[in-house]
Amino acid sequence: MKNIILTIFIAFSINAFAQTNNTQEDSIAIRKLYNASLLEGKSYAWLDHLSNQIGARLSGSLNAQKAVEWTKQELEDLGLDKVWLQSVMVPKWTRGVTEFAYIQTEPGKTTNVPICALGGSVPTPIGGVKAEIVEVKGFEDLRKLGTDKIKGKIVFYNRPMQADLINTFEAYGGCVDQRYSGAAEAAKFGAVGVIVRSMNLRLDDFPHTGTMSYGNLSNMDKIPAAAISTNGAELLHSMLTLNPKIKFLMNMNCRSWKDVESFNVIGEITGSEFPNEYMIVGGHLDSWDLGDGSHDDGAGVVQSMEVLRLFKETGYKPKRSIRVVLFMNEENGLRGGKKYAEVAKNKRENHVFALESDAGGFTPRGFSFDCDNENFSQVQKWKPLFEPYLIHYFSKGGSGADIGPLKKDGIVLAGLRPDSQRYFDYHHAKNDTFDAINKRELELGAATMSALVYLFDKYGVR
Amino acid sequence: MKNIILTIFIAFSINAFAQTNNTQEDSIAIRKLYNASLLEGKSYAWLDHLSNQIGARLSGSLNAQKAVEWTKQELEDLGLDKVWLQSVMVPKWTRGVTEFAYIQTEPGKTTNVPICALGGSVPTPIGGVKAEIVEVKGFEDLRKLGTDKIKGKIVFYNRPMQADLINTFEAYGGCVDQRYSGAAEAAKFGAVGVIVRSMNLRLDDFPHTGTMSYGNLSNMDKIPAAAISTNGAELLHSMLTLNPKIKFLMNMNCRSWKDVESFNVIGEITGSEFPNEYMIVGGHLDSWDLGDGSHDDGAGVVQSMEVLRLFKETGYKPKRSIRVVLFMNEENGLRGGKKYAEVAKNKRENHVFALESDAGGFTPRGFSFDCDNENFSQVQKWKPLFEPYLIHYFSKGGSGADIGPLKKDGIVLAGLRPDSQRYFDYHHAKNDTFDAINKRELELGAATMSALVYLFDKYGVR
Repeated sequence: MKNIILTIFIAFSINAFAQTNNTQEDSIAIRKLYNASLLEGKSYAWLDHLSNQIGARLSGSLNAQKAVEWTKQELEDLGLDKVWLQSVMVPKWTRGVTEFAYIQTEPGKTTNVPICALGGSVPTPIGGVKAEIVEVKGFEDLRKLGTDKIKGKIVFYNRPMQADLINTFEAYGGCVDQRYSGAAEAAKFGAVGVIVRSMNLRLDDFPHTGTMSYGNLSNMDKIPAAAISTNGAELLHSMLTLNPKIKFLMNMNCRSWKDVESFNVIGEITGSEFPNEYMIVGGHLDSWDLGDGSHDDGAGVVQSMEVLRLFKETGYKPKRSIRVVLFMNEENGLRGGKKYAEVAKNKRENHVFALESDAGGFTPRGFSFDCDNENFSQVQKWKPLFEPYLIHYFSKGGSGADIGPLKKDGIVLAGLRPDSQRYFDYHHAKNDTFDAINKRELELGAATMSALVYLFDKYGVR
Repeated sequence: MKNIILTIFIAFSINAFAQTNNTQEDSIAIRKLYNASLLEGKSYAWLDHLSNQIGARLSGSLNAQKAVEWTKQELEDLGLDKVWLQSVMVPKWTRGVTEFAYIQTEPGKTTNVPICALGGSVPTPIGGVKAEIVEVKGFEDLRKLGTDKIKGKIVFYNRPMQADLINTFEAYGGCVDQRYSGAAEAAKFGAVGVIVRSMNLRLDDFPHTGTMSYGNLSNMDKIPAAAISTNGAELLHSMLTLNPKIKFLMNMNCRSWKDVESFNVIGEITGSEFPNEYMIVGGHLDSWDLGDGSHDDGAGVVQSMEVLRLFKETGYKPKRSIRVVLFMNEENGLRGGKKYAEVAKNKRENHVFALESDAGGFTPRGFSFDCDNENFSQVQKWKPLFEPYLIHYFSKGGSGADIGPLKKDGIVLAGLRPDSQRYFDYHHAKNDTFDAINKRELELGAATMSALVYLFDKYGVR
């Protein structure tokens, strides 16, 4: 008995000693990653180039191709073990000339309001669509009103984001059906167009675009759909209250084209011990066409590139193969994410971990995890290592759209969770530009990502 | 024995039941406070007025007086039990015409750089001071160089804020001696002027002012002191490296006047059970004169006002007397804070709790506490109540400059701790303006403050 107890005690002590030792080593390694990001980081300069020298990069555009070529070159310059492009066919949609809209209270009396076509919308007929407006809060209202009251009119979805939700992504989730399916639903009742209140918690003059779907509507039945700025929505609502007979004109000449070839950009540091276990870190290279996509998702792109650079810079040699993947076409198709997962499956590559940054370049608060309980409880044990950096949020939940298709048993999917308060001020709008990025916040995000990848690489996925 | 166990069990159960009940009640009350702030808050509209209709409000200025009168009126409109002004004599210093500075590489060849006088500086002689530059990293360098190398020159303090510190206030603390005592120290070695690198982690063109002291220098020995923008500091450093003989001209006509009367603005909800126990929440009403003081400390002012409004709005009737105190003259004298504590002491008012918001209107992360262990461990138990709002930081540390003079045994002093990454981009500079405020971040701060005050009011200070 005594011997057993002694053995247990010794085993425990060795274990405790090893743990303390590991914790110190990890703590030092993580400090190095943060220092390298904050003192000599490249993420901010990279984003400056991507945003200001290249700019908006909607799938299928010339700028998207420039972004592919430039990021490939930058990854090559880092001296990674491999850098390559992965071909993927993507949708191509163009906005055409800037949209135009007004509210008409009586013939000759009009007030212009800022709109933008939703991504994937059909154009209006030349000269625009002009019709009376039906304001609704959602699809239930459509059913209540019925075809009688909707036919021939423009449906105005005006359910705002809920300001009392602390996580603004929840507020977004509660509204985005209006944008995504609003046209498909309204068309069933004979509407001739759709205007959606921008997914924005702030009152301002920027319309916010975003992807939409016509579901299984035939081409003939598709109706044009646009977002209106939150100030525009408030104005329209007030004017409708005064006079329900006012008319709205919307004019758009956006267009969908045939799919074109584009690319995911991939770089790899090959693992020293387990080269066939793959861990990926990524963001999406495409953006909407209105701003320059600095937060969505230029930030995620440069932070992901920075993770690999930080490993090289601090001399950390991963045991597993770490890939940075810059996905194409997250915004309006997710073709890049699907393609990457498809190729990985065909090649039987064993992906054990994937981390995406696609929630803006704001102060990082932590991560959400889509994984089993065993790996999640492993993460919980690492919390103290993140405390000095004020990273406290470790929660089960979604990860990222692009890495979603990799989901399978045993893989850990994670999403960086930055402070969400300002994200929807910029999301998919003209003001998502480089000046809205704070250098330190961006760099802290990159360092925080690198720390998590470091820990999963070192201790493996259960 | 059995009976004893049963008794203990019952006592424990009742206690546990009461606790659960309290927790539920608290959780609901706190949710109400957040909702009222986020859905129907007044803080943002108040700050809009204070920043855009009144503007910069340095102690002793006309705008400071306007801010006193307007906030008093607003507090009266809230229907508090008492609202009053507390007279306090404050220093008056004026900047005069905008400062002017250039670097001269050779006669006739000059490059302008942005500077601003430090608060309290003496002016230059008419036409300015022109002299060679000695660049130093701190006071130790002055001693090494000695009078021989410093006499007749302008000392340029160029020790930057440390970017690898996560809490930017720590980085500020590590640099601010250059601004506060730089002139006093350099004058001892015969310097004719002082230029200090702005306390800013970003490279930009805004010089950041702030208070300074000449220590016990005689009036004759005082030398003019100014801040230079971080870009200006980098340029000056580069040019000095190329040619140590370049000259610098600085021209300022700032001036100190006799003290003038000003006021702390105070409002009170009188406690229903313990009216003689005082709990205060505050920020400082004065600001520097360059921007409009939206973050420093307009945010703290309107958040503190909002705490009392939220109590009235949600129908919470405090047991203790809750005061909002808008302190005058934090920036260059702390006279308001000292006066408030002095009057409280003279009147033998029993202050048990004080909370200050003076770290910007950014997303709140938590609080720091200056209190005994018993009260701090009480706070720790409340952590779960803050979790839904992503408030996680509860740490021992400083509180706020204005409430510091209230310090005594048994009082709990606390400071709101918002995200600090962007604070020094704006601090004491021309760009500290209303457009740098995010409505939700400001409102979350006010709600978080009200939740803490609610808990300390309900459960009391130990």
